[in-house]
Order: sequence, then structure tokens, then C-alpha cells
Amino acid sequence: MNENKIIYDLIIIGGGPAGITAGIYGARQKLNTLLITKSFGGQVARKAVAIENYPGLEEISGLELIKKFEKHLRKQKIDIERDEVVKLKKIGRKFLALTKSKNRFEARAVIIATGADPRPLKVPGEKKFIGRGVSYCAVCDQSLFGDKTIAVIGGGNAGFEAAISLTNYAKKIYILEYGEKVGADEINQERVKKTGKIELITNAVLKQIKGNQLPERGEAERRVEMKANSERGKLHRFVNSIIYQDRKTKKEIKLPVDGIFVEIGSQPATSFVKGLVDFNEKDEIKINPRTNQTKIPGLFAAGDITEIKDKQIVIAAGEGAKAALSVYGYLQSRK
Amino acid sequence: MNENKIIYDLIIIGGGPAGITAGIYGARQKLNTLLITKSFGGQVARKAVAIENYPGLEEISGLELIKKFEKHLRKQKIDIERDEVVKLKKIGRKFLALTKSKNRFEARAVIIATGADPRPLKVPGEKKFIGRGVSYCAVCDQSLFGDKTIAVIGGGNAGFEAAISLTNYAKKIYILEYGEKVGADEINQERVKKTGKIELITNAVLKQIKGNQLPERGEAERRVEMKANSERGKLHRFVNSIIYQDRKTKKEIKLPVDGIFVEIGSQPATSFVKGLVDFNEKDEIKINPRTNQTKIPGLFAAGDITEIKDKQIVIAAGEGAKAALSVYGYLQSRK
Repeated sequence: MNENKIIYDLIIIGGGPAGITAGIYGARQKLNTLLITKSFGGQVARKAVAIENYPGLEEISGLELIKKFEKHLRKQKIDIERDEVVKLKKIGRKFLALTKSKNRFEARAVIIATGADPRPLKVPGEKKFIGRGVSYCAVCDQSLFGDKTIAVIGGGNAGFEAAISLTNYAKKIYILEYGEKVGADEINQERVKKTGKIELITNAVLKQIKGNQLPERGEAERRVEMKANSERGKLHRFVNSIIYQDRKTKKEIKLPVDGIFVEIGSQPATSFVKGLVDFNEKDEIKINPRTNQTKIPGLFAAGDITEIKDKQIVIAAGEGAKAALSVYGYLQSRK
Repeated sequence: MNENKIIYDLIIIGGGPAGITAGIYGARQKLNTLLITKSFGGQVARKAVAIENYPGLEEISGLELIKKFEKHLRKQKIDIERDEVVKLKKIGRKFLALTKSKNRFEARAVIIATGADPRPLKVPGEKKFIGRGVSYCAVCDQSLFGDKTIAVIGGGNAGFEAAISLTNYAKKIYILEYGEKVGADEINQERVKKTGKIELITNAVLKQIKGNQLPERGEAERRVEMKANSERGKLHRFVNSIIYQDRKTKKEIKLPVDGIFVEIGSQPATSFVKGLVDFNEKDEIKINPRTNQTKIPGLFAAGDITEIKDKQIVIAAGEGAKAALSVYGYLQSRK
């Protein structure tokens, strides 16, 4: 076990937009800062379609944006560990982070910014067509689907709201719900009806996502290709249908669609702080929205891991800046 | 009087980072959006030193950043009016914006994003040395003043906090306060004492900011020069001293300094909504921090005009995105 004797002012856990921005701000406030992350970029690095809503960078792939963020971070005086925090504890007034590589790091304040991944469908074709018609963010990607036919998977509020938003672009939208009944609020159900463009299919088990034949490829080729596709804005060209089973008739049905939006919940990466902070019903960390502090003094959270309503890159970045400046204020108040 | 018959979904008032980002998000949600602003950029366009804390753009002048923001906005389907809103009213469920050019615009929702300017000193030399040693934002500009001597003008909490933050870079800091006593909290006063680097001067009336002789210049040259200086990161080179009067002895005293940070409050641009929304003690608009809605349904605010704690470009941009997505949700709920 590697004992690390430095006590940092601030440990940031996570290397997405919130964590990176917190790092930039923490370092510029001359906090002795350590950022621990498995990898940089979080969801952003895995986004296949071009990002068009980060102000100042009109159109940029997720990988390119994260490269810029990471370069910006590395320009600061900051320690970076490529590792995964498996447990965070508060001992007295200090925090102790234990990592997968059996390292121990101590700090007087912590920002949790490990983000949240959308829950995947885990059906054949899903991975293959990510960024080629399969999307996990309607706000981000809907503009690529002008006049197209779309399937939204998930009949909760998220699915209904994604479908309503998609009516601005797509000509026809199906919502597929596994259950007998949908989970969306009455008001969202009414709105969906009013659009005249959305068809609800209940008792539907998604079996497969199909599309034009693609050459086999390894991870490296896939990323290069995703990036190129993203830059051409042509990613929605590949999916051509889905197959679902009707749970009642047991029949398999093929539905021609140009795109699939997955809205079956998210998986915030919070297991290492279970018992330490409070969560909402979506397992997101509860924070004071003005300061980003959790219920534990000195423990802050920022970005998609928190209960903030909208999961967007520029919002997460702003939250990271807020959290770091709050940490600075917190540490000043303890001097 | 020009009667405009369109009823917009959304009017955004203000063209700084919050307003522009709200515009990008509003337009991408297919809200029929009008943005009204006198000019683009707000405080950012007037920033003379390079911006180093907008994630993804390591080092960029305020003018360049705002050009990128404006270009990004203009790529969207959005109406833009170069005008000034002088009065905003709610009539029934609609909002009516009256402008200086006697135009009337109507919308179902409004985002106020007119920002706040720091209160200027109004002493000789201030304007001349903006970006040449005179700054209004310690968090933004402090890193330019490594090992320098600084005067912070203003003995409130903002001034004390700026001075404490500056101790990370500067070797010596004076705080000048007009009154007999400072307004800063006891805890900030104690912290200032502990630094050993900060000297407090009370009863001080700032009279003049002096520096190396500069050639006369018009506005156009000034902006070009500011930009060039900003890119060289050498702006702090010009100021060399301040002159203040001791209110008791009436003596004028010259203090050699390399930079001045002005912390005498800000002036939120809110006069057109007096009586409509609630303000805090700094005249900033009170909002629900989760949705950015004011106490008036359909009326939202974002950025430095609001009571958010930290006034930073990336935070304001995030708040603009949040506000626009909240407007979208609000309008959906009224359908």
C-alpha cells in the first residue's frame, strides 16, 4: 500500500466537464489540488454526434472538446491521478479517498464530479449504432433528425419529454414502453396526444436494433470513424429499424426507424459515497444549489452526479466552477 | 410607434454570456425567440486582460470570446434586435417589452440577462488604465500580478476577499477604505491580518491613478491595443502608483502600486423591471436557483443580474442554458 503524506486542499473526483472546470478554478485559486479520474471526458468523450451547444465552439466532436478541456486543465498547477476512487471517508476534519490501485489520498475538501451514464438497453445493435442513430440525449442530438422517424425507448417522464421535444424535428415518433402502463405524468400523456405525431406502444420488449451493414471494427477504428462521422453530421444514416416483441402476443415486430433515443434512466457513479451523502430518488447527490455543498461540510458535488435538472456540458462546467469557488470560501472560513 | 404583431415564445433581454447561451438553447428547443440587446458581450467585451478560465479556450481576449459567442448565436434561427428595453410589463399571461426605439415586443416568457457592471471609481486615470493595471475581477485577473504590489479599493467583504485571494500572487496588498471603519465581516478582518501581506488604510479618498505616459488614442485604437496587450499578457505593466487623500490630515499621499482592483460594488442593470421582481440587498434579482424563475411565472433571470454568488463567464453561460430549458418546460406546461 502506497501511503501518500500530502494533505491536499482539494481532491476532485471525476474528469468530465464539471471536474475539469473545478480543477481549473481550484488551481487558479492556488488550492493544492488533486484530480482523480479513470479517464477524461465522461459522457462527452463517448458522444458520437457533434456538440453544437457549448457556447463559443459552434460545432465540435466530443473527443475534440474533451481534448481542449484536458489541455486547459493540464496547463494549471494541479496533480492528476489516473485511478478510481472506491471509497471516500470523512475522518475528523479531513477526507480520505481510497483508490482501486490501493492508494490513499487526503484532503481538507472534496468535490465529487463523477457524472452519470445513461442506462443502456443492452440489446444487440445498441453499441454498434451509438452515434449512428442511437442517442441518449434528445436535447443534444434531436436537430440531426429533421423529418425522420424515431423510436423513444422508455415510457417515463424522460421518454415522454424527449418525444415531445423531438416533435420539433422528427415527423413521426414511437414511444416504446415495457409495461402495461406508462410511468409518465398525466400532463405529459396529454401533451403527447396533442402533438398528433407520437404513437405509444406498450408491452414492448426491445429485442434488436438493426441498420445498414457495417464493416467489423476495433475500438480504435470505431472512435476515429465516430469522430469523422460526427464532423459530417451524418450519424443518423445508419439505423434503419428496430425489432420488438409484443409481451402479450409474443409476436416479434419490425418497426422501420431512423433513430432511437434511449430514456430508461441513468446510473450516477455514486457507490463510493453511499452512506456519506443524501441522494434523491434517482440516486443523484443532493446539494445546496447555491454552494454545491452536500450535507457534509467540506464535501461538495458538481455536474450530472447531482440533482441539477438539466444535464448539459456548459451547465456542468458552470457547476464545477461554482463548486471550486465554494471550496475556496469554505477553506478560507476554516483558517 | 412600431406595433409588432408577433407573439414570441421567448424574449431574452441582454447579450452577454448568459443571454447568448439562453438564445442558443432557446432556438435549439425551437422556441420562437427574440434577443434584445444594446450590444454583445457585456462585461466580457470590455475585459482587457486575457480570459484564462473559460474551459476549452485556454487563453482568449474578451473581444475574441464574445465574437465566438455571437457567431454561435447567429447560427441559430433567432431574431435579434439591437435596442434597449426600458420597461417590461406583464399583461395577462403575456409579457410586453418596451424599447428605447419605441418598439413593443410581446412574448409568453422572458429571460432577463442584462448583467451587472462593476461600479467604477470615477477618478482620473481609471478609464485610461483599464486592462493596464486597473481590474474589476480578482478571480479573473489576479494571476497576472505575481510578486507585484496591489491596491484594492473598497473595505467591504468583496474588497477583503479580493485582497486575501490576491495574496496567492501579489507580494504586498493595500486595502483602501473611504470610511473610518471597514465594512468587512470580523472573520474577513482576522483573515486579512493573518496573511501578513495586507495593509489596511482607512479614511482614504482615492484621487488619481497614475502610470507610464501613454500616447493619446481614440476608442478604436484603444480596443485594438487592449486586445494586443491582452494577448501578450502584459497589461499590468502600465500603472505605477495611486494618489489618495487622508481624510483626517487632508494630506495627499502617493502609493507606488502595480495594479488596482476595484471592489466598491456593482450596478445590476435592473431599472426596467423595478416593481416586477424581488431584489436582494445588492439590487440583484432573486430567483429559484434550480429553475432560474423569478417570483413571476414565465419571467426568468440568468447570470450576473441574479443573486448567484460567483460572477464568472462559464457560470453565467450555464445559468443561461438552465433558464432557457426551464422556459421550454414552462411553456410546455402551459400548452
